[in-house]
Order: sequence, then C-alpha cells, then structure tokens
Amino acid sequence: MAAPSEESLRKALADKQAAVDSRGNAVRALKAAKASKPEIDAAIEALNSLKLEKSSIEQQLQAIVRGGDGSSLSREEFRQAVVNTLERRLFYIPSFKIYRGVAGLYDYGPPGCAVKANVLSFWRQHFVLEENMLEVDCPCVTPEIVLKASGHVDKFTDLMVKDEKTGTCYRADHLLKDFCNEKLQKDLTLSAEKAAEFKHVLATLDDLSADELGAKIKEYGIVAPDTKNPLSDPYPFNLMFQTSIGPSGLLRGFMRPETAQGIFVNFKDLYYYNGNRLPFAAAQIGQAFRNEISPRQGLLRVREFTLAEIEHFVDPEDKSHPKFQEVADLEFLMFPREQQMSGQSATKMCLGEAVSKGTVNNETLGYFIGRVYLFLTHLGIDKERLRFRQHLANEMAHYAADCWDAEIECSYGWIECVGIADRSAYDLRAHTEKSGVALVAAEKFTQPREVEKLVITPNKKELGQAFSRSQKNVVEALEAMTEEEAMKMKAALESKGADEFLVCTLGETVTIKASMVKISKEKKKEHQRVFTPSVIEPSFGIGRIIYCLYEHSFYRRGKNKEEQLNVFRFPPLVAPIKCTVFPLIQKPEYEAVAQRISKLLTAAGVSHIIDMSGNTIGKRYARTDELGVPFAITADSESDVTIRERDSKDQVRISVDEVALVVKGLTDGQRTWADIWAAYPHHSSASADDE
Amino acid sequence: MAAPSEESLRKALADKQAAVDSRGNAVRALKAAKASKPEIDAAIEALNSLKLEKSSIEQQLQAIVRGGDGSSLSREEFRQAVVNTLERRLFYIPSFKIYRGVAGLYDYGPPGCAVKANVLSFWRQHFVLEENMLEVDCPCVTPEIVLKASGHVDKFTDLMVKDEKTGTCYRADHLLKDFCNEKLQKDLTLSAEKAAEFKHVLATLDDLSADELGAKIKEYGIVAPDTKNPLSDPYPFNLMFQTSIGPSGLLRGFMRPETAQGIFVNFKDLYYYNGNRLPFAAAQIGQAFRNEISPRQGLLRVREFTLAEIEHFVDPEDKSHPKFQEVADLEFLMFPREQQMSGQSATKMCLGEAVSKGTVNNETLGYFIGRVYLFLTHLGIDKERLRFRQHLANEMAHYAADCWDAEIECSYGWIECVGIADRSAYDLRAHTEKSGVALVAAEKFTQPREVEKLVITPNKKELGQAFSRSQKNVVEALEAMTEEEAMKMKAALESKGADEFLVCTLGETVTIKASMVKISKEKKKEHQRVFTPSVIEPSFGIGRIIYCLYEHSFYRRGKNKEEQLNVFRFPPLVAPIKCTVFPLIQKPEYEAVAQRISKLLTAAGVSHIIDMSGNTIGKRYARTDELGVPFAITADSESDVTIRERDSKDQVRISVDEVALVVKGLTDGQRTWADIWAAYPHHSSASADDE
Repeated sequence: MAAPSEESLRKALADKQAAVDSRGNAVRALKAAKASKPEIDAAIEALNSLKLEKSSIEQQLQAIVRGGDGSSLSREEFRQAVVNTLERRLFYIPSFKIYRGVAGLYDYGPPGCAVKANVLSFWRQHFVLEENMLEVDCPCVTPEIVLKASGHVDKFTDLMVKDEKTGTCYRADHLLKDFCNEKLQKDLTLSAEKAAEFKHVLATLDDLSADELGAKIKEYGIVAPDTKNPLSDPYPFNLMFQTSIGPSGLLRGFMRPETAQGIFVNFKDLYYYNGNRLPFAAAQIGQAFRNEISPRQGLLRVREFTLAEIEHFVDPEDKSHPKFQEVADLEFLMFPREQQMSGQSATKMCLGEAVSKGTVNNETLGYFIGRVYLFLTHLGIDKERLRFRQHLANEMAHYAADCWDAEIECSYGWIECVGIADRSAYDLRAHTEKSGVALVAAEKFTQPREVEKLVITPNKKELGQAFSRSQKNVVEALEAMTEEEAMKMKAALESKGADEFLVCTLGETVTIKASMVKISKEKKKEHQRVFTPSVIEPSFGIGRIIYCLYEHSFYRRGKNKEEQLNVFRFPPLVAPIKCTVFPLIQKPEYEAVAQRISKLLTAAGVSHIIDMSGNTIGKRYARTDELGVPFAITADSESDVTIRERDSKDQVRISVDEVALVVKGLTDGQRTWADIWAAYPHHSSASADDE
Repeated sequence: MAAPSEESLRKALADKQAAVDSRGNAVRALKAAKASKPEIDAAIEALNSLKLEKSSIEQQLQAIVRGGDGSSLSREEFRQAVVNTLERRLFYIPSFKIYRGVAGLYDYGPPGCAVKANVLSFWRQHFVLEENMLEVDCPCVTPEIVLKASGHVDKFTDLMVKDEKTGTCYRADHLLKDFCNEKLQKDLTLSAEKAAEFKHVLATLDDLSADELGAKIKEYGIVAPDTKNPLSDPYPFNLMFQTSIGPSGLLRGFMRPETAQGIFVNFKDLYYYNGNRLPFAAAQIGQAFRNEISPRQGLLRVREFTLAEIEHFVDPEDKSHPKFQEVADLEFLMFPREQQMSGQSATKMCLGEAVSKGTVNNETLGYFIGRVYLFLTHLGIDKERLRFRQHLANEMAHYAADCWDAEIECSYGWIECVGIADRSAYDLRAHTEKSGVALVAAEKFTQPREVEKLVITPNKKELGQAFSRSQKNVVEALEAMTEEEAMKMKAALESKGADEFLVCTLGETVTIKASMVKISKEKKKEHQRVFTPSVIEPSFGIGRIIYCLYEHSFYRRGKNKEEQLNVFRFPPLVAPIKCTVFPLIQKPEYEAVAQRISKLLTAAGVSHIIDMSGNTIGKRYARTDELGVPFAITADSESDVTIRERDSKDQVRISVDEVALVVKGLTDGQRTWADIWAAYPHHSSASADDE
C-alpha cells in the first residue's frame, strides 16, 4: 500500500478534528442532560478512540512535513551531529571567531583544507588534464567596465526589505519562504487548499517580481522576525563587494562574483594559444565573492567561496562531442522541465536517450552532464541523492539555450552544487560590444565558397535632401532591413518607383523613392566563416559540494544509543589523512616499528598521522574514524602488523615491509579493500574496536 | 688589475673634462692669434686624443652605472627579451587587456598557471608535509577590527604626493628614487661627492619620514613626471582595498593585505588541535591585496598576489630546533646588518656558524633560513644571485627579534622574495588585547614548583579616606610597583612608618603610611607556566619568486646574432609541461607510435603535449624550448624512439615500451639526465636542432 499523501492526511486530519469536536459536544450534552454513567462512559470511550486516531494521523503528517526519514535522527538532529563533529575536529571554523565572527565567512581548518585540496586536485585531473583544458588564473579585483559588460553591475541583485524602525535588512524571498515553510510544517490544522497555496508560493518564489513579493508580504502580514516591526517594500541590493582601485578613488572596482569573466575577456589570446582551433575549453579555480544580505544555511550560503569553472567554446553550428559515447550509457536521476511543471518527481534516464530525444539540448552539454555525474559520485556523493534538474523556461537567462543544475539532497533540501549551462554566444558578444575587440572565431574553407549577399546602398545625398536631420535614422533603418524586407522594397521600387517605409527610431513612416536606395544581390567569394562561438559552462561550487559530501559520508555507530561514535566514510581519494599508525601498546619495539612504517609511508607519499598516545585502541580508532581516515595500521609485532578498514572494521595481517605499498595502492585506487581482504590472512581481534 | 671604481672613474672623467676644456680654449686662442697651421693642427690632434680618452672613461663609467654585465644584452634588453617571450607564450597576460588593462593586475595563462601550481605543490611538500604543519584556508574579506588590532588600519601606508594641478598620484619615495637613479646613471659629469650623496639617499630611502621626503623633493626641485607641475607635500595613503560587509553599509571590511592574521586569530583552536603542545606551525596559501599607488616593475609589484605564509609558534624561552643540524652545514650568501652599514657586500657564510655566533638570533630562525635556501635553489634560483639580507635596526618593526629577507637578483636589482622574521609575541598579544580572548600557551610542570611571589595589598578604605577621588590612581600605582620598588617601600614603611611615592598618572608625589598598604612575599605552588608564544614567520611572495625564476632560467642560443632562440632551463619539477611527443615526419606508423607513447605518458601521470604539425623538427624543438619543456620524444621507428634533453640537446635511443617510465623517472627526480646518458645508446643526428 502506498503511503498516504500529505494532502490526504491534511483532509483526514480536518475530518477527524471535526468528528472529535462533534463527539466532544455530544459528551458535554450527555453530561448536561445527566445521562446514565454507562451511556456517558461509552461516549467518552468513543471520543478517546477518535482522539487516538487523530493523533496517529498527526504523527504521520508530522513525519512528512518535517522531513523525518524514518531513521532515529530527524533532519535537524542529523545536521547538528554532522556540524558538531565538523567544528570540533576543525574541518571548518567560523572566521574571526575570537571577534564573534562575521556571518557567511568560514575558515577551513587542517582536515577541511586537506579535503578541499583533494577535491580540487581530482577536479583538475578529471576535467583539466583529461580534456587538455587551458587553465588560467585571474585576479579577484575587477574593474567596473568588465562587470558592466557582463550585466552584473545592473542585474546581480537580490530583493531586500528593511525593518522600518531598526533598519535591519532581510532577504525578502527568505522571509516569505520561512513564513510558508513554518505554516506548512507547524500548523497541522492548515486546510489542504491553504497548504497547496503555500506550496505554490514556494515553487514560484524565484519568479516573483519586487511588487509581487511585496504584495505577498503584506497579504500574509509578515513582519521583521526579531522585532515584529513592519517591513519596507522590497528593493534590489547589488550583491557585489565594491571597492576602489588605485589612490585616486576614481576607478570603481568589484570583487568578482564568478571567475568566468576572466576567461571571456581572454578569449582571443586563448583561441590563438589553441592554434585558432575550436572547440577548446578554458578553466579556472579561484575565489568568488557575494555580499549576501543575510547569510544562513552554514557552509551553503557564504560570502566568499571557491568556484571551479569551465568555459567550453564551440561552433554554434556543431555542438556534437567526439567523446559523448563514453558517457551515453550512464543512467541517473534527471528532472526535465516538463516533469517539474506537471508535478512529477525526478526519474532515472539514460543520458544517451535524453540527448537523442532532445530533452538535453546537445551532445556537448550532455557530455558535461555525464562527466559531472562521474565526478560527484567518484567523490562519494550518493547517486540516489543526486539529480540533474533542468531550468524552467522563465528561470533561465533569455540567451541560454539550455541549463541543468546538479542538485544534491542534504538536510537543507535539494541544493544546487553545479550549474551546466549552454550560454550561447551571449558573453563573448557582450564583451565584443563593450570593448570593441572582436571576440570571434573563423572557420577557414578549404575551397573558397561562392555566396549570394544582399547589398543595400542608400544614396545619402538624396536622403539628406529629402529628410534633412532625420537622414541618419533613415539610412540606418534601410541598412538594417532583413533580406525579406529588402527584396519586398526592391520589388515595390521597381514596380511603383516608391515604397512606404517605417523608421522605428523615428516612429514614423517615410516614402522611399527608387533613386534613394540601391538594393541588389551580389555573388561573392568567401574564404572563411567568421562567427561568435557558443560557450558551454559547467560551474562548480566547491564548498557546497564538500558540505554535501560531509553529510553523505557521515554516520554513527555504537553499542547503544548513548555511546554513538561518529564516522565519515570518505573514499581514500577525499580522506584528509589516508592512514593512522600506532603501536598496540606503549612498548619501545612496537614504537620503533610504527616509526619505521611512518617513514615508509612518507617515502611512498601517503599522508598519515602517528598516534603514540597511551589511549585504548578503541579510542584511537574512534578519533581517526571521526576524521574519515580510511585505514589504520597497528604495530603489534616486529614482523607483521594489522591493517583495519574503517567501515567494515575488518582487519588483515601484512608484513612490515609490504604495508606502506599496500596502503599506497589502496589510496591510489589501484586496489580495493576487497582485493586485500582476498589476498591476506584475516585478523579477528573483534574486541579492539570495542575497548 | 682590479677594475676602477665608479668613484675613481667619476673623478677621472671630471679631470679629463677639465683638460679637454682647457685644451679647447688653447686651440681657440691659437686660432684667434692666427698661429701657424702645423701649430694649430698639433693642438687639435692633442685635443682629439684627450676626447678619445674621455670617451673611453665615459664608456667604462656607463657600463658600471647602467648595470651592463659585459654580456651582449644589457639589463633592459635582457628583461625585454624575457618579458616578450613570457607574454607571447601566455605565461602571463595583463588582466582585462581588451579594456586596456588595470595597472598592477596580471593573469597567469596556461603555462604560467602550471608553473605556479608546480611551485605551490612543491612548497606544500617541502614545508607543510615535511614539518606536519597545520594548513588553514581563511577568507580574503576581513572585518576592520582584525586589521585594527594588527596595526594595518593605522600603519599600512605609503607616502603619496599629488600633482597639484591634475591630482595624479605618485609614490613619493619612487619619485625621489627615480630622480637619484637618473642622475647617477645618465649624468656622467656628476661630481663624486654629489654621486655619494644620491647613493646615500637611495640607501636610506625606507627610513625617511614624510617631512624628510618632502624636504628632499623640494631641495632637488622634483616635479610631476608627466606634466612638470609642482607636487603636494607627501602624506600617507592606506594600501588596503576597502569594502563594506553586508547590506547595511555599517560593517567596514578590507581585502586582507597578508594571510597571517587568519592564522593568529585561530591560534587557540590550532593549539588545541595540536594537543596543546608547542612548537607547531600553521600555514596558509592564498590571495593578498595591496592597493599600490602606482604599480610598476611588471610582475614584481602588483595589486593582488599569492602569498604562502608559515607561522611557527614557539616557547620564547626555547627557540632551539631539533632539525637544525640538517641545515647547519649549508653555505650561502649572507648579508648581516654590520656588513651593510660598513658598505661591504654579502659574503658566503656557514649557517651553523651564523647561528652560533649570534649573527642569526636563534636556531629556529636559522632552520627556516636554511629551508628557504633549499626551497629556492631546488626551484632553479641561481645560488650566486640569492642572498639573505638582515634587516637594519631601524628597518625592522620594534617588536621583532630579528628579520632576514631572501633577496633574489634580477634585472630590477635585488628583490625581496621571502621575509623570515622572528616577530616575538607581538601578534598574539595584539589580538589578545583587542578580542579579550587569551591567546596563550601553558607549560605544565611534572612537579608543582614552589615560587616566591610578591603580594601587594592596598588598603582601599584608608586610601580612599586619604586621597578621595585620586584613590583609584594611587591603588593602581601601588599595584604596578616592581619587586625592587615594593621592597624599598616595605623597608621604608617598617623603619619610618611612611614613604613618599610618585603616582605618575597624577603627576604628584603622595605620602603612603604603613597602614595603607601591605607588602609581603608569599610562597605559592605553581602547576604550570602560562605565556604568549613567539612566532617565527617565513612569508613567501610566490609571484616574485616565479618572476625571478623566469629571469634566472632564460637564455638565448643560435647560429648567429639574428637567429637567436629563446630557452627556459626550468628543472623538470617546475616545467609547465614535462615532455613533447612528435612523429619525425607525417607518416601514419610514426603518428601511431606517438599516440601510443602519449597514452603511456598519461597513464604514468606525466603532463605532455603531442605535436602532429608538419613543422620541421628544429621548429618544433624551438617551440617547446621556449616553454621550458625539458624532454622531447621523436617517434622515428616502431620499436625505438629518441629522447632529446633541452639544454644539452643530447639525444639517446630508448624502446617505445620503456620511454614513458624513463621520462617519469626523470621528472620525478628519481633519475638524472646523466644517468640516462650513461645507460642508453646515444643518437647523433646533430642536424635535427638546426633544421
């Protein structure tokens, strides 16, 4: 039997509440009428049983709306357990903590720093080296003109409201979102209709204009959360950190909100570097900055973060990809536009089919979707909590051909971690226009091609005499005619000697005589085709990926509910430290073996720590499990030692001379634990972990 | 015979000029007196020979003052050749070039990016992994309070002058420096005394106050370089990029001018992470920002750059280093304070001796000097153009115990690339004071120690009655007495019953009676010693190191002066690409071999490029030499191929199956070219490089 839906539960709860109310009235009526005790008792019993039924419905509804997953920990509790572990072990630290911090700024402590370095190094290998991308490294400080051209100066805004008395600022959409979520999650008496309305508001939140947002805030009576004061109307706030370059104060600059613009402005040099050939991709890893209005969601919405971006430049007439077949058979959760609109959920699709059916716009876009899927799952992101969601038509920039977000589900819901967009020629055109430098590519023909070209030659002298000061507008309008318009005019001029012509920039129709313009088609030889390349942009929010990875890797285990131990099941590729080494007990021979293994590991380039403390083995395992260290070596003899795998807690015995190379093979990905388990004698000191 | 000094040449030139002048007058006098032709001719001949002698002295002087090194290229020409190659091959690109750029901002293009990644990866290995440092990663955006505590808000300034008419800004010391250099280099008639004066100004430039700088500018009549307008008096300009955090505009922030503060504010957490043990080091690699007044010197003085910083925390009472012996025998150019003051130059010293003699303040500082030396020379910095210069007493911050700069000589002179400073407890104390959070360490005693402690107990009631409103000042002054002062007062009170006492904060002397204060020495047991650690900070300007490396690695070679080819002699560790592969001629069999080798190299993790163009071998070599690619593989048979080493142009023959592993061994540093040269048959197609 399928679980009942939220809607049916809300209806059932309302019905049951009505039944309880009416039965309650009945009981009161019986009492007032001084009915017999058995009669009253029977009525009370019926009422209680109704209340029990109601309470059971309430529990079911609560489980759905609060996102409980049926496990022992609620989403909130789970998140708190992860975050506590991360902070305690310095995976991250709120920045400037001794000065009470700054919202939205975080430091990576030693293990966090190592995880980040591992993720970036794998990114470089998986994308930059594999595809021979041209990596660049541009400054964060960016002059205004660049971000004016890209549109950020005018449009990179969020809508903000102010507490009318204290001046405190809030993101308008967040307040509305919180209000709706609060109602949906806490108010179980909400009617099914009202619940549907709030859900619709949540689904269309990104689409609301300033006026619409303001109207909703008024309608629902939303006030400032801290003071309950009234709020201002929403108005746009630019999210870029502004500064001034040089001592004069005259050159306005911003901290870049993305790394992509640094690549676009270098297109010409990079195209030349690539031997004037398309397609090619450039890549950049670097800091980006967004002055969020009121950052929350911990590591997910921050004011400074590391982006890794790829700009793949391609001929707009040929977006095929030579390596697409390598990813065509992948199957994973996809969430096309139509499925979102019709209220369905994401379904498993085969990537090759999604491209051939046109669900995904082209092969190159599809290729990158597949590569992103491989990248994320390789890091340890759970396939079942990863989906590729297509942007809705109105959510996508007007110039974009298609856009898919890799979304990862965590305790905050589905989080956009990678955007993969076909931005067409927008960015290169914008910079061409603003800078006057043509950011174009050319396809050289092996044979010159003969093409028929429309030639429109306005007779400026005659037009000047006829239209005096409006001459310029008329000339420009004539030259801007499409082929169809021009051929129609040519026919009219030839047959009637004149034609009526609407000049938009003047807002009036003028009469064009045959002598005023010459329209013809001429044959020309062309040696090349010059065009603005399209760009396909996969853009990775590294911090968000890492945070989701923390949640997907975290689990607890232990003998009982009180003694739960935290574990991160990082794959060796990601683990901040690959191996711990310790002597079984504090005994010089064992310590010497541990030191010797440590040196062998250093020589093999395996990052490790050595733990000489006198703690019990169980405690020492627990300390490294919490850092996600995949392997632990215990020195308990001078010839052989034990390796223990973190998640299975299985142990095998290996000789001291061999152990470093075995761990290296495991962390390089050349051998799996299953290989080792099959090849070496098992060790069964079941008690070690429980000490 | 020693070359004549600049001073003696200036004197000789002045004498010769005087002789020329007087001989010229003599000739004119003879002509006026209508002397005989032979007499006049003889006088003219003597004049001409004097002029020749003068011109020879001028040439010698010119060679000295313009820094010509006797080679065919002058410093300027050499730099131009390097920079042209770097820009043409996209090692770097002026940022936002299509918008005519912004002074002091540069992009790294693909090869520059790879060199930077190699340098940083080696830095991590050589410092962070080798010493088990705690790496952190903090944001660039920093709230004002942090940089107020560190002193940057008040003191991180340069002195600036403005063109009084146009408002254009200049760095005051740069204008004075340019003026002196110009005079010294171009004015050969300068007297030896005047030359000495200008040199003294240059040597003490960093020491001049705003008033002194202004006075010199007035004295020399220095005007705005572009307009010749008069200049304003010098005034301080803060070099931090300022911004505002959050939407309210109330929280002032800056882009960090160094990464160190992010480590200091985290001291408490990092000390805990290290098990509350000293010494330990934290490290950070990241962007830093300085809003230079008028950046010049290309990649050496930029507005945004990558810093790699280490903060090594140590007990101030024990600055020994367990691994100092590993570097004690190193010998290199050192330039102690005394040698600078007495006008000598840097000399080779043994590091162990420098520490034992006290030239370098302590072992830990010495250890890092040695490690920095190894780091830089390993990258390919020329030992003969690397020196460690000690800061002069007045150049060093007042709190610093000792400070040495690793300076590298390039075409711009000696450039500070790494600063290695013992900053004592300054930074931790400053943040303790500002934040109220104690950034201290504790040494736990194994046995509690008995200590005698001075105890001063003012009797507040009596003091209040005696001094009413001044009571607080008197109490504080009594409590602040040193042990000596207190014991003197105790004696006076015991013998005379009263003592005269100067209260500085009141500016008056008061009479203290025996009843007003109790002074005693008490024995106490202490379990630990709490103290603020000292910090030793090696700070690396990565971009400067890379630029100097470019200059030290660059050379030209060729058949004749016209056909010079550019080469970077990067060691494999640094080279942006380790290997090129190409078929000898465009023939399918050779191309297949080249492709096969490329796959083997990818599997071995060796970064390489494959060149299938039909260019001559010579051209293909030249193209990769210019990128500093150390090895080239030519596929000229299906079994064996040729490897050519870049600098020697020597070639050996190796089987196709073996070649990838050989190149891997060469680039990993496990084998040298000499090993390979000894082990494999030589190939002598001398013509290949000259094709």
